[in-house]
Amino acid sequence: MSEPAAAARLTLELTDGLKPDGLEDLYRDLHRHPELAFQEHRTADRLAARLRAAGYEVTAGVGRTGFVGVLANGDGPVVWLRGDMDALPVREATGLPYASTVDGVMHACGHDLHITWLIGAAEALAAGRETWSGTLVVVGQPAEESGGGAAAMVADGLHERFPRPDVLFGQHAAPGLAGFYPHTPGLIMSASDDIDVVVHGLGGHGSRPESTVDPVVTGAYIVTRLQSVVSREVAAAQSAVLTVGQFHAGTQANIIPAEARLALNLRTQDPEVRERVLAAVRRIVTGECQAAGCPRPPEITVHPGYPNTVNDASLDEEIASVHRELFGAHAVFDFGPAMGSEDFSLLAPAGVPYDYWYVTTTPVDVWEAAPGEGLLERLGNVPSNHSPLFAPDLSVLVPGVQTLVSAALSKLS
Amino acid sequence: MSEPAAAARLTLELTDGLKPDGLEDLYRDLHRHPELAFQEHRTADRLAARLRAAGYEVTAGVGRTGFVGVLANGDGPVVWLRGDMDALPVREATGLPYASTVDGVMHACGHDLHITWLIGAAEALAAGRETWSGTLVVVGQPAEESGGGAAAMVADGLHERFPRPDVLFGQHAAPGLAGFYPHTPGLIMSASDDIDVVVHGLGGHGSRPESTVDPVVTGAYIVTRLQSVVSREVAAAQSAVLTVGQFHAGTQANIIPAEARLALNLRTQDPEVRERVLAAVRRIVTGECQAAGCPRPPEITVHPGYPNTVNDASLDEEIASVHRELFGAHAVFDFGPAMGSEDFSLLAPAGVPYDYWYVTTTPVDVWEAAPGEGLLERLGNVPSNHSPLFAPDLSVLVPGVQTLVSAALSKLS
Amino acid sequence: MSEPAAAARLTLELTDGLKPDGLEDLYRDLHRHPELAFQEHRTADRLAARLRAAGYEVTAGVGRTGFVGVLANGDGPVVWLRGDMDALPVREATGLPYASTVDGVMHACGHDLHITWLIGAAEALAAGRETWSGTLVVVGQPAEESGGGAAAMVADGLHERFPRPDVLFGQHAAPGLAGFYPHTPGLIMSASDDIDVVVHGLGGHGSRPESTVDPVVTGAYIVTRLQSVVSREVAAAQSAVLTVGQFHAGTQANIIPAEARLALNLRTQDPEVRERVLAAVRRIVTGECQAAGCPRPPEITVHPGYPNTVNDASLDEEIASVHRELFGAHAVFDFGPAMGSEDFSLLAPAGVPYDYWYVTTTPVDVWEAAPGEGLLERLGNVPSNHSPLFAPDLSVLVPGVQTLVSAALSKLS
Amino acid sequence: MSEPAAAARLTLELTDGLKPDGLEDLYRDLHRHPELAFQEHRTADRLAARLRAAGYEVTAGVGRTGFVGVLANGDGPVVWLRGDMDALPVREATGLPYASTVDGVMHACGHDLHITWLIGAAEALAAGRETWSGTLVVVGQPAEESGGGAAAMVADGLHERFPRPDVLFGQHAAPGLAGFYPHTPGLIMSASDDIDVVVHGLGGHGSRPESTVDPVVTGAYIVTRLQSVVSREVAAAQSAVLTVGQFHAGTQANIIPAEARLALNLRTQDPEVRERVLAAVRRIVTGECQAAGCPRPPEITVHPGYPNTVNDASLDEEIASVHRELFGAHAVFDFGPAMGSEDFSLLAPAGVPYDYWYVTTTPVDVWEAAPGEGLLERLGNVPSNHSPLFAPDLSVLVPGVQTLVSAALSKLS
Repeated sequence: MSEPAAAARLTLELTDGLKPDGLEDLYRDLHRHPELAFQEHRTADRLAARLRAAGYEVTAGVGRTGFVGVLANGDGPVVWLRGDMDALPVREATGLPYASTVDGVMHACGHDLHITWLIGAAEALAAGRETWSGTLVVVGQPAEESGGGAAAMVADGLHERFPRPDVLFGQHAAPGLAGFYPHTPGLIMSASDDIDVVVHGLGGHGSRPESTVDPVVTGAYIVTRLQSVVSREVAAAQSAVLTVGQFHAGTQANIIPAEARLALNLRTQDPEVRERVLAAVRRIVTGECQAAGCPRPPEITVHPGYPNTVNDASLDEEIASVHRELFGAHAVFDFGPAMGSEDFSLLAPAGVPYDYWYVTTTPVDVWEAAPGEGLLERLGNVPSNHSPLFAPDLSVLVPGVQTLVSAALSKLS
Repeated sequence: MSEPAAAARLTLELTDGLKPDGLEDLYRDLHRHPELAFQEHRTADRLAARLRAAGYEVTAGVGRTGFVGVLANGDGPVVWLRGDMDALPVREATGLPYASTVDGVMHACGHDLHITWLIGAAEALAAGRETWSGTLVVVGQPAEESGGGAAAMVADGLHERFPRPDVLFGQHAAPGLAGFYPHTPGLIMSASDDIDVVVHGLGGHGSRPESTVDPVVTGAYIVTRLQSVVSREVAAAQSAVLTVGQFHAGTQANIIPAEARLALNLRTQDPEVRERVLAAVRRIVTGECQAAGCPRPPEITVHPGYPNTVNDASLDEEIASVHRELFGAHAVFDFGPAMGSEDFSLLAPAGVPYDYWYVTTTPVDVWEAAPGEGLLERLGNVPSNHSPLFAPDLSVLVPGVQTLVSAALSKLS
Repeated sequence: MSEPAAAARLTLELTDGLKPDGLEDLYRDLHRHPELAFQEHRTADRLAARLRAAGYEVTAGVGRTGFVGVLANGDGPVVWLRGDMDALPVREATGLPYASTVDGVMHACGHDLHITWLIGAAEALAAGRETWSGTLVVVGQPAEESGGGAAAMVADGLHERFPRPDVLFGQHAAPGLAGFYPHTPGLIMSASDDIDVVVHGLGGHGSRPESTVDPVVTGAYIVTRLQSVVSREVAAAQSAVLTVGQFHAGTQANIIPAEARLALNLRTQDPEVRERVLAAVRRIVTGECQAAGCPRPPEITVHPGYPNTVNDASLDEEIASVHRELFGAHAVFDFGPAMGSEDFSLLAPAGVPYDYWYVTTTPVDVWEAAPGEGLLERLGNVPSNHSPLFAPDLSVLVPGVQTLVSAALSKLS
Repeated sequence: MSEPAAAARLTLELTDGLKPDGLEDLYRDLHRHPELAFQEHRTADRLAARLRAAGYEVTAGVGRTGFVGVLANGDGPVVWLRGDMDALPVREATGLPYASTVDGVMHACGHDLHITWLIGAAEALAAGRETWSGTLVVVGQPAEESGGGAAAMVADGLHERFPRPDVLFGQHAAPGLAGFYPHTPGLIMSASDDIDVVVHGLGGHGSRPESTVDPVVTGAYIVTRLQSVVSREVAAAQSAVLTVGQFHAGTQANIIPAEARLALNLRTQDPEVRERVLAAVRRIVTGECQAAGCPRPPEITVHPGYPNTVNDASLDEEIASVHRELFGAHAVFDFGPAMGSEDFSLLAPAGVPYDYWYVTTTPVDVWEAAPGEGLLERLGNVPSNHSPLFAPDLSVLVPGVQTLVSAALSKLS
């Protein structure tokens, strides 16, 4: 079905009967009940049940809480569709009627959308199975957020226990006025590393700092010093983001604690830059602890994370064409690589091409109310992924199903 | 019994039969079972039981977990002896055989010594009650560490429900080679305030800091900027200590959180300096949040804490004389006011004189192994109160009972 | 002469008799006698004399110390070639036999190369004037380094007093193994702004900081805080560099001065990013001065500097083709836009296309000795423009003449 | 003349004829013509001329620009009176009619007052020489401000070439409502050290920080890190001041310079604290340069400066008594040791007692207009020594002569 126009027409046919209400109910239920990485039991159970009802053969517990649904529908290509399921340790602040009911946990990255889209597409393609042939594999991945869910599924036999894919598709909710489908034919997401730092000071009474080595003060100087890595050591033409996402020290105002714990996240798009920044972090943390007179050197542990996500360029152009047919040429454009990271690419066996795109989700009223004249400025002023205010517009539910269905149909016979 | 020599002689007589072993058992038991502020149930129960066995009438639950024991022994002055009971949220690292059995809680400030001394003195004075007349009141105070235990006892009727004191005594374990009893005839401990700071940033994805206002970075700049308060805004002749005892922000390396929480402790000895520092803290935190572009101003909450502790000068000279008789002239000297704080003084009804002194507790081998030639340098290199390594020498158990007994006898008829 | 091959052949012919020795003598003389912006009297005099000797009609004093040489050689296009003449306030540290003889002044940006190339090309084209027809205009520009030399020439009638150009060419010495000629068909250099900051503190005795507001400390916190602009407020996909090039405060160690003066330079490639960074600088400097309690707000003066340099894409492709003919296809590639800035583009009247390219100059032994395996790492480890160690390889003298001659011949009839 | 009352009476007699106008003319002339350390030629010439006119034998050029005047007046004690002559590199901002006429140089520390007082006292004592016997030695010292003037005079034979003193007197203008004469019987001024720091970075183009090591940024982090020395490493009961009086780096906004130069001044009152702070400075500067990745270690040069100034306690009490007689008991009190430093004490041969006191100089209207209720707060809000606004009240001219005359008369026979 290599004609974009044909795939788009069939997609509209198969999703014609989609009930937005049904998708909304599913989405709201998932949003209300977020589950952290590798704890997605309720989520996986409900999704697996719906897939089974639609005719899929479902294997649960792949990579701990992941699942795989297979719909063998005659000869033809094997297409994998993937959605990730885990939520984040964020305290929701949207005030939505369907806000999280779990204190301190929130679907703040849109994974609830991803799996709603995934189930919607799986059901639509199953219902219309007489229009295509081949094998559809639906992958419900756990623990995308730094948890290593994709690697866990692979380690659990994903590549051996299920039909080998000819192609893998995935998509991600993104900030930006709802109604756009950015495609990038190459590098689309960045490499990510987590770095744990433990500063060893010397604890003591808050009134006698002279008999201590204060790890709170040392940690603070480290955080300010780390700002110079990106500002002074990375060329402007290169991309790197170094975030200190956690700073934890101390139990009581009048006790100087014995240590401070920092958790850093690094995003890069070039291995040379990655090495340079990691070396700078080690140098700065060590130098600051020497400046502080710490009794022991700091512990610096790099947890190598997700690699670059690099779309197959011709596959991406093919899928982008179908999406243009569906939504108009204006709706599909190249946003360039983002600093976000994904373990999506790990799900593809070596050599198998994949494509990954964005679906913008910012409600029109939020977008228009955001201060700023330019696109960048507005983008900087709407709640983005991981924000406690992240609240996608529900108008994106049906289109996000259509993007997956049309991509699958492009490849299925 | 105004003669120092007589009080000292009688003290030695009354404590002659003191079994160091018994004191050590009590001390080790208390050290093994530390309890946080207002949770000193086990501690209070055991001490009350011993006092009752010694003949005291004990009232429990004064100021939640505090207790008061009264021994009316004929006409004469009313003397109050006080010990504080609470432990700290510190993870013990001494490796002692009698180390804390409660994870993350430790008697790191020596309150276990204070109450061992108090019970030892109460029992010795009760056993020797035929040698003096008057009324002895033993006050077991909860929650001295920022918890407001003294205020809680006063609010619960301490000054009305028990015999009004003519004099109040207390003592504190301090770093320094064991065997010294520093006395200060006037200001001995400082005023303390806790200050809570909440920095409101704008959370988001760790890879897109440009759409956030990073509260971790802002908090770090605040901590470094606060160092200039003492270094630049307090005259060298004045004393102030400003500690950031807690810095907590973030749940995950790749999420920029929405806020950071700092807890500060301030020690001063002069109200003008206190006001100046509080104003500087407000100015700096506010200015840094403006520099950061925070969407909301920070919350800065000052919890006024303990006032200065000012010994009655002539009372202190009197008690210092008795202690010189007991331990030799070399063992008693004036260390000057410390930056530590106490709510001890609140226990004394207005106008009632009080005296408070130190007992040094550093084991001789620790002292001699500490690097540094001068006294100050050594003091800076031995584990001090609130350190996870604070471990008093057990040789101080009997002398710390004698200091209290001799002070009481100085005033009793 | 639109055939690249023909222009290249003629270039080789015209530069065949070029004596490297003569170019080296000129270069060494210029390098020995650097002159700061608008003080290029000796430089301009010598160059003008050579041009006159070659048959050019030279007008001196255009834009103070600039000059314009015109060679009218029959009908045909008007081609402008430009070189900039000013040196930098840098103390040379190369140890070269022909190092600067002026203490604290150095040709550290390669402008001595630019004008040696310019004169070499002007002489070669004049000597071979029977091979082409048209008008050649040689522009010796003063004060390129933040001095506004191009604007000064335009204000002095450059666009009215001389034949209007059909095309403008310029080139710049760059770090990188000698022998490459990077071309970029579009944005090649960035916008630059200078920002002066004056922090007003309150001076006083170095021993009594409490009676002052210390501008050295405040300035230092500003510099550290400014690092967060690029690290936190500019998206990784955007390019910005914010440098504090000067920090001056104080006259004596024991006096706290009344003010500190900072000079910042900003490079951007997008007006939205430029506005965002300028706003951040204003917000941070103001917020830090509030945090410091400065008696007066800081002075923040933005000196809008040079705009983006945007090559005409088809012109650049044309010239790149000639250069490929001359030096081989491997020697010409697209390096992408740099963060450097230029006022070169201001010399072109509105609508006149221009092209600007790089000539790499790092000696092969320096390049090979530089630590680092990747290109980026090496580039970061060889002395770059503005370094006191910047020392171009003299092998680039003849090729840098040929680049200009061939570009001119491409356009002349 | 050991009776305070008698010395005071005679002082009033000898200064009865003092013309305030004459002192004011002298003072204004000196204030208008400030001279930096070791350049006090005009000042020394004029003062020497007046002393000669009054009958002193004057030796000029002692310690370069210093002078010594001797009035041998029969048997009896030898009394030395000292004034220092040098001005400061401060740009005066008082707007006084008699403001400095030398741009960037100002008598901002009151040395013009010191020598006016000294000459007034020398003339009054000479005029009344029939009332006392002994030898009066007037020492005009150059270069007190970090210049080492006292050491230069001693090296030049001060202790050998002139009558050996039995006692040495000096005094200093100080902020505080005019009319007070603070005396301190012991430590009165602190030890001072200057520390030069050179940070070696790697210079380069302002748009390519990734190829440099930025010494401006490194210097700024050092300055902020140094704030933690006093705030965290010096006990609150100890006194130390660490000031960064100079920060100089860079020549142009778009050049990253190769080095930054800092000049620090340290004040301490205890050798142990001094050593501790010097070690902390070395540790921090070194650690920060390691964090920065500086290509060479920093240069840290300690210039040991002036020692503690410790008054002879019984001498001070004696002179304080005379001053009480003259000005009333309320006017003389103990302010405690200041963080200021002096090389005055070096002028006294070993074992010779000396006394040094303050004369407060703030005009009453300035004092009353200063915001703040407490004394400390007001003191912090009036212009102090080294401020460009320091402007002593002229009402202090006669009393400052009387303090010296009365001190001398107390010791002369």
